[in-house]
Amino acid sequence: MTETATARRSGAASRERFIATTARLLQRQGYAATGLSEIVAASGAPKGSLYFHFPGGKEELAAAAIASAGAQLRDAIATVFASADDVAAAIAGLIDALAAGLAASDYRGGCPIATVALERAGDSPLLRERTAQAFDSWLDAIAARLRAGGLSRARAERRALLVLSAIEGALILARAGRDPGPLQAVREELAELLA
Amino acid sequence: MTETATARRSGAASRERFIATTARLLQRQGYAATGLSEIVAASGAPKGSLYFHFPGGKEELAAAAIASAGAQLRDAIATVFASADDVAAAIAGLIDALAAGLAASDYRGGCPIATVALERAGDSPLLRERTAQAFDSWLDAIAARLRAGGLSRARAERRALLVLSAIEGALILARAGRDPGPLQAVREELAELLA
Repeated sequence: MTETATARRSGAASRERFIATTARLLQRQGYAATGLSEIVAASGAPKGSLYFHFPGGKEELAAAAIASAGAQLRDAIATVFASADDVAAAIAGLIDALAAGLAASDYRGGCPIATVALERAGDSPLLRERTAQAFDSWLDAIAARLRAGGLSRARAERRALLVLSAIEGALILARAGRDPGPLQAVREELAELLA
Repeated sequence: MTETATARRSGAASRERFIATTARLLQRQGYAATGLSEIVAASGAPKGSLYFHFPGGKEELAAAAIASAGAQLRDAIATVFASADDVAAAIAGLIDALAAGLAASDYRGGCPIATVALERAGDSPLLRERTAQAFDSWLDAIAARLRAGGLSRARAERRALLVLSAIEGALILARAGRDPGPLQAVREELAELLA
């Protein structure tokens, strides 16, 4: 590699490290509690490169982290759905995967974007829009699976809103109670509804 | 009134003002973004009295605000349920009331405690516990209404978890999208399920 290519690769690696670290901190503690110095320290990337990659600072970095986390969960949804025999099993599989992640993180890692969505919906048009786009991408994946199961487009879109809302809410209740019960209850209720 | 009684009454008024102001700020922007100086300025109560009433500072004040907001919504649920003819109408009425509050606040005033629950679940046992208690009190009210509609205790508790989760999640999606659609979808889906 030339020196320029090496520098470029190392720059890209720093950028990805900033995004991954920010996504993890936003998921666990939200936007306001996450400072740039904490992001730099936790990422291990050189501080000077943060404003090089993200001249817009924390908001721009958070927007990239939300987009990245949104795409990652959308891919995870596709993977879970691909191995499910029917709609009920697909949704149950998604809830099981999220419940496992929540328990493995000692009830810190719930929805990667919900905290920021609630904190910043009123004050940051950029972050509000990025969270809405991520939610929409998950809704599209769920609605597509429901349509494949036989629902009309309108019914599938409406039911996808119920499914995602129930999952998002159960992730809040499960974190507050440090208890997977809400996710299990939603899993069972939805399985019955979707069967 | 004696001077002591006047002072006591004014002290109680300051305490209530701090709690009401904090509850409103926590609902709109969360815990980390809300500073004590903002609370003092917005409440109009004397700054010196804050640590008199809340020697534990911001965390203690937030805990009182969460408890107060939790009780207020529990009472609102009871009022809405009391005027509903059946279970489906009761849940629809609750969602309508929350949707109206959200729209009236320009999509800033969603669930009064969800943001704090997500932000602080991992780091403040006190606030985690207070949010869990508030959620439980709402779940109890919903489960009681479902039992009155004919469900067994176990089924009512499970379905109450679906109902509250779906409402909490729809409030997130509605804020992110600045759109009442998710609440309307959940309202219609639940009405069908509960009919």
